[in-house]
Amino acid sequence: MSAQNPVFIPGPTNIPEEIRKACDIPTLDHRSPAFARMFKPAVAGIRRVLGMQQGEVIILPSTGTGGWEAAITNSLSSGDRILTARFGMFSHRWIDMCQRHGLDVQVIEAPWGMGIPLAEMEAALRADTSHSIKAVLATHNETATGVKSDIAGLRRALDAAGHPALLFVDGVSSIGSMPFDMAGWGVDIAVAGSQKGFMLPAGLAILGVSPKALRAMDSATLPRTFFDFRDMLKAYAAGGYPYTPAVGLIAGLAKSIEMLEDEGLSHVYARHHRLAEATRRAVAAWGMSPCAATPDLYSDTVTAVVVPNGCDGTELVQLAATKYGVAFGVGLGEVAGKVFRIGHLGMLSDVMLLSGLATAEMCMADLGWKVQLGSGVAAAQDYLRKSANAALAEAA
Amino acid sequence: MSAQNPVFIPGPTNIPEEIRKACDIPTLDHRSPAFARMFKPAVAGIRRVLGMQQGEVIILPSTGTGGWEAAITNSLSSGDRILTARFGMFSHRWIDMCQRHGLDVQVIEAPWGMGIPLAEMEAALRADTSHSIKAVLATHNETATGVKSDIAGLRRALDAAGHPALLFVDGVSSIGSMPFDMAGWGVDIAVAGSQKGFMLPAGLAILGVSPKALRAMDSATLPRTFFDFRDMLKAYAAGGYPYTPAVGLIAGLAKSIEMLEDEGLSHVYARHHRLAEATRRAVAAWGMSPCAATPDLYSDTVTAVVVPNGCDGTELVQLAATKYGVAFGVGLGEVAGKVFRIGHLGMLSDVMLLSGLATAEMCMADLGWKVQLGSGVAAAQDYLRKSANAALAEAA
Amino acid sequence: MSAQNPVFIPGPTNIPEEIRKACDIPTLDHRSPAFARMFKPAVAGIRRVLGMQQGEVIILPSTGTGGWEAAITNSLSSGDRILTARFGMFSHRWIDMCQRHGLDVQVIEAPWGMGIPLAEMEAALRADTSHSIKAVLATHNETATGVKSDIAGLRRALDAAGHPALLFVDGVSSIGSMPFDMAGWGVDIAVAGSQKGFMLPAGLAILGVSPKALRAMDSATLPRTFFDFRDMLKAYAAGGYPYTPAVGLIAGLAKSIEMLEDEGLSHVYARHHRLAEATRRAVAAWGMSPCAATPDLYSDTVTAVVVPNGCDGTELVQLAATKYGVAFGVGLGEVAGKVFRIGHLGMLSDVMLLSGLATAEMCMADLGWKVQLGSGVAAAQDYLRKSANAALAEAA
Amino acid sequence: MSAQNPVFIPGPTNIPEEIRKACDIPTLDHRSPAFARMFKPAVAGIRRVLGMQQGEVIILPSTGTGGWEAAITNSLSSGDRILTARFGMFSHRWIDMCQRHGLDVQVIEAPWGMGIPLAEMEAALRADTSHSIKAVLATHNETATGVKSDIAGLRRALDAAGHPALLFVDGVSSIGSMPFDMAGWGVDIAVAGSQKGFMLPAGLAILGVSPKALRAMDSATLPRTFFDFRDMLKAYAAGGYPYTPAVGLIAGLAKSIEMLEDEGLSHVYARHHRLAEATRRAVAAWGMSPCAATPDLYSDTVTAVVVPNGCDGTELVQLAATKYGVAFGVGLGEVAGKVFRIGHLGMLSDVMLLSGLATAEMCMADLGWKVQLGSGVAAAQDYLRKSANAALAEAA
Repeated sequence: MSAQNPVFIPGPTNIPEEIRKACDIPTLDHRSPAFARMFKPAVAGIRRVLGMQQGEVIILPSTGTGGWEAAITNSLSSGDRILTARFGMFSHRWIDMCQRHGLDVQVIEAPWGMGIPLAEMEAALRADTSHSIKAVLATHNETATGVKSDIAGLRRALDAAGHPALLFVDGVSSIGSMPFDMAGWGVDIAVAGSQKGFMLPAGLAILGVSPKALRAMDSATLPRTFFDFRDMLKAYAAGGYPYTPAVGLIAGLAKSIEMLEDEGLSHVYARHHRLAEATRRAVAAWGMSPCAATPDLYSDTVTAVVVPNGCDGTELVQLAATKYGVAFGVGLGEVAGKVFRIGHLGMLSDVMLLSGLATAEMCMADLGWKVQLGSGVAAAQDYLRKSANAALAEAA
Repeated sequence: MSAQNPVFIPGPTNIPEEIRKACDIPTLDHRSPAFARMFKPAVAGIRRVLGMQQGEVIILPSTGTGGWEAAITNSLSSGDRILTARFGMFSHRWIDMCQRHGLDVQVIEAPWGMGIPLAEMEAALRADTSHSIKAVLATHNETATGVKSDIAGLRRALDAAGHPALLFVDGVSSIGSMPFDMAGWGVDIAVAGSQKGFMLPAGLAILGVSPKALRAMDSATLPRTFFDFRDMLKAYAAGGYPYTPAVGLIAGLAKSIEMLEDEGLSHVYARHHRLAEATRRAVAAWGMSPCAATPDLYSDTVTAVVVPNGCDGTELVQLAATKYGVAFGVGLGEVAGKVFRIGHLGMLSDVMLLSGLATAEMCMADLGWKVQLGSGVAAAQDYLRKSANAALAEAA
Repeated sequence: MSAQNPVFIPGPTNIPEEIRKACDIPTLDHRSPAFARMFKPAVAGIRRVLGMQQGEVIILPSTGTGGWEAAITNSLSSGDRILTARFGMFSHRWIDMCQRHGLDVQVIEAPWGMGIPLAEMEAALRADTSHSIKAVLATHNETATGVKSDIAGLRRALDAAGHPALLFVDGVSSIGSMPFDMAGWGVDIAVAGSQKGFMLPAGLAILGVSPKALRAMDSATLPRTFFDFRDMLKAYAAGGYPYTPAVGLIAGLAKSIEMLEDEGLSHVYARHHRLAEATRRAVAAWGMSPCAATPDLYSDTVTAVVVPNGCDGTELVQLAATKYGVAFGVGLGEVAGKVFRIGHLGMLSDVMLLSGLATAEMCMADLGWKVQLGSGVAAAQDYLRKSANAALAEAA
Repeated sequence: MSAQNPVFIPGPTNIPEEIRKACDIPTLDHRSPAFARMFKPAVAGIRRVLGMQQGEVIILPSTGTGGWEAAITNSLSSGDRILTARFGMFSHRWIDMCQRHGLDVQVIEAPWGMGIPLAEMEAALRADTSHSIKAVLATHNETATGVKSDIAGLRRALDAAGHPALLFVDGVSSIGSMPFDMAGWGVDIAVAGSQKGFMLPAGLAILGVSPKALRAMDSATLPRTFFDFRDMLKAYAAGGYPYTPAVGLIAGLAKSIEMLEDEGLSHVYARHHRLAEATRRAVAAWGMSPCAATPDLYSDTVTAVVVPNGCDGTELVQLAATKYGVAFGVGLGEVAGKVFRIGHLGMLSDVMLLSGLATAEMCMADLGWKVQLGSGVAAAQDYLRKSANAALAEAA
């Protein structure tokens, strides 16, 4: 039996009809002016979504992971020192990549469920009086724990320490869904992917690169060709690509930006906040709590729900998939089994969200967890129906 | 903002991905063998879905209404007497059509919410000792009230009266979703449409025609060309169509039948029953009741929910559309305002259904109706999660 | 092996990407305002394409044949006299339909390859001093022979005879591809279909109806319900449809009109003329000639090519389909075997047309017809490349 | 105006309907069993297309260029010596990449239009008595010049020299269109891309890796994470991916392989050869010649046509795009302006090819080149129509 159940993984997200159609096009010569007509607005739109004022946008036929690799290989050299914090699976993976590329990574460990420890980061920066730290790496939204970190605060820490390090931000699961201010936050490289807030299939790494990061490009000696910003920028200047781009995804990206801006970025962010809040109300009604330690850390794109003692979040995810055809996210790494994750980003309506919450409840009951059917749904309904009026009024 | 909210109108129904793709094809010459390769399995499949053993299938580029017209114009002549019952908007419309075509319609009125009054029908047939009644018209599933009538019982009434009238059945909102037994029930013309249980867009009228009805074809003098079975059957025999068919819809119909049979027709019917029952549990939890007077009349494809005194079902439907982007059906004719309708046919999963029930609850609260948020959802969840096990087991 | 060979049948025509996507939509409630937002521009656009100034547009989920039936059943009564000419398969079929609906049809026979015989029509109208002729039926573009008739001339004939008959025009294979002037020509009902110049799949009959024809609606006694203009207009006024419309096709129609008007109707007509002329140059280079007797009769949407003595056009069509995967049209009725038909309407580019001409040549050689490979292609290339400059300049 | 003109660039190629639909799917959880059900047949099919008997398939969300980078970074270390030949733009680019990754590249220069110089390669291998050469890199089909090299011969050269170097082959524009025998030729890494013979959009690098190359994986110290075979193989073993895969493209790849194997790989190769030969006949009829120096070097996927003295191939490509909406390939690097390229790979029918040849002729005439319109088309028609019979017979 076919169904149109939404997915509730924290990416890839549900793809809107309009974007599916924009991506699904007959072959277009990527060396033709028609390609440039599609590519330029996409690049211009990315600048607006990232809040860029200067610098360049790079769009690679790759994924977020490739975006991370492009960020470091285009700015750093073997043995360079970087500073970062580990507080979830995605911050961990970036650290691992840096180590495999021969960087000297200074890691500040923080409990999973916490965000970037600003005070410790600042202390480490202040301690680095020789400015040997070349770059600070920050995961804006840790998808594994549903934790949003304070990038503006990190910039303040850098400034307070008077440290010139580059600031690289993984915004893969935040950009396009939560406010991002590349210029205001002084971000040097921001990394996004197509398959989260941009509502596209996976296949594009999207980077914003500051003038300062661009200046590091020529002295960086980590080897790269596929990811080399220099080839990319040279080809862009000639209206093209150094190799075959993912033409359909770029067409889809242009449409995505059109859709985000038609809705209004502030409305997009408000919608994500509202759906996240409804999810959290449901979680509370279930007698559970988010993995994120405090409300200021709550992510508006994904909620990692801590399951009761004796329960296994992974079982819920598996049951939802096999019995109800609904995809949630499992806990990863340290929180494997201890949480299940509800992605609430990208294309999502009240109605779609409620179907996910109702499914989670059925799974809990099926697994013998203590839950009152309809309880989380009711809490979410109450919040959604009341806040919808304001949302509709503002949209009008 | 885009969304993938399901529709809950009693047709057109949600279209599966697979069927959308099957319908969306480049132009194919309808005079080519490739068309015949697509058309023949569709026809063969229709025979199985209708439960035909003899006779012919006719597929017209039209709608259910056109199917009704084809049924009468190919078998009757001006002034012919027919017998039927009126107990909802769709049975009414067919009567109106017959009158406009100059037929002499003997109407048995029944309250809306009741089904075909078998005893009165039988009495009328018995009274017609001269056998002036040429045809009996029956609406299997009255979409306006969510009432399923007993066609097997009607056949027994005809047989008990020893009456030779043709039996025409409107199965537009039942066929493909509820058991239909054309041979067993002695149906002479069954009328279906593409946009209900077959999960296609509107655009096809699908008819099963018994040998007895085919024999009436040549003596029938009601004028018709577009709908003429004779042209259609002659062209079919030559592997073609008398005019341009809706090629994409026919490709989609072949896929629809493949999907229905892959699921298994008995499983399809069981799924519809299960989702209908879940809906009725929610309705009961809301303290409301179906328009259908007794459980034996409950339709498995649509539930017309009688709203409390002082409430207006149409307001709920309008609010659901404007505030939540969800489509329900309004009450029509005699029950306008008194009911709202939840279509639960075609492609529908537990998860999709729950999102509709949750939406209805929010609308009730928004309109100040007395309802406990989550109550209907919980009743449906409880039923769905328990019955799913059996459904999964049987499917395995 | 898959291919994207164009079709060269005179309808259904090649469907543009944009229109396929417009048609292929998730289920939309046809009773919602969203449907009305799609339907109204489609109707408004049809008025412009038909050149209407007054009257109403009717869009039926049917085909051109259904459109013909709607035209006569909404304006005429059994026994009414009509005047028309037979000069091809489609004019013949309309006559046959009228006879089956009990009309008294006065037929003027003309050789296939000729157009409407204006002088004889005028004589017949003048002879009808009692004005018993209620309607004159005209096939604007006879698809079987590739003949375009002079509707403006027919209007002049009516006026010269001072005859008040209604004028009905079958524009199924002309409207949207060749100039049509409903107001200027005094057409009372114009019939179009979705699958020709509008580049959509089959499934819509599109009619323009003059105020004079609308006034005939209530006195017309031919039975009809599915096709009844009165129900349709009443429902339109309420923003809806009397039954389920073909929502996707209507969405596609709105897109079709947008595309036609973006190109500019005059450019659309010029493009059709240019491609038709290129086809005729190829035909001449093959030493053959169009079935249309004189250049003023040449259709710009389809060329019926008279094949040499001893050759069978149907064999060419079959070989093109089986050997090369290309669809042409066979000769119908009186010209079966004597012609093959090249449709050159709807979405068609120079490049697409050349592939069809090249295919026809290969088939001729394969069948042992006397032809020089490349000869027709060269003649068409020469004309296309020279006329393209002017076309591009005008479009700029 | 819309059109469905094919493209004639040597990739991305025309995408079949079936593959477009396979790629265009709703979001599917890549951690679900449903993903594995799609991925495994794709991998198994790649093994058959590559002619693998042992080793592993790696599928990266990247492009052919990324595939090259993955090949070298997973098997080599900075300073490693490799041997290769430069005879076109793509062999050049791979050399450039190796140099940027710090490899010691021994380049044998050959004229553009020639293939891999086997004798000189063998001499270089024989001269390397210390076996310092770690890998030999070979471009199977040089897309810039339309030259196919002899990989079996290169293997013989390695064997004759008794040299243990790894053999890496760029088969981006050959695999899936021309015979490839990874096991028979002793290829250690074969690189393909999705957008050529597989008829998909760009976005996948596809690699076959021999056991010998896999053994080099752990000692290779070139840094890589995104492209790391170890992560990939570890994740595959667990039924997943180390990061988000391009799910739609993988679905499309499974369909591509199904289509290639339904046609039969030998028929696919024969079709490519036949279309290539038809192209070459046209080129000869134009009085021109392929860039490939001798018939044994002729590529069956792309023909680089040497234009007459005083003519500029790039002008032809630009005119074809702007005036006729048809994409050919320009000359690159040393042969810029001196050639234009006709891609004839992937989904392509006789009819599609003829439209490209006809377009090229019109452009030549437009540019004042000496050409007889229809001449190349006629030569191709003659060959195609005669060889089609054999092709059809064999397929039957």
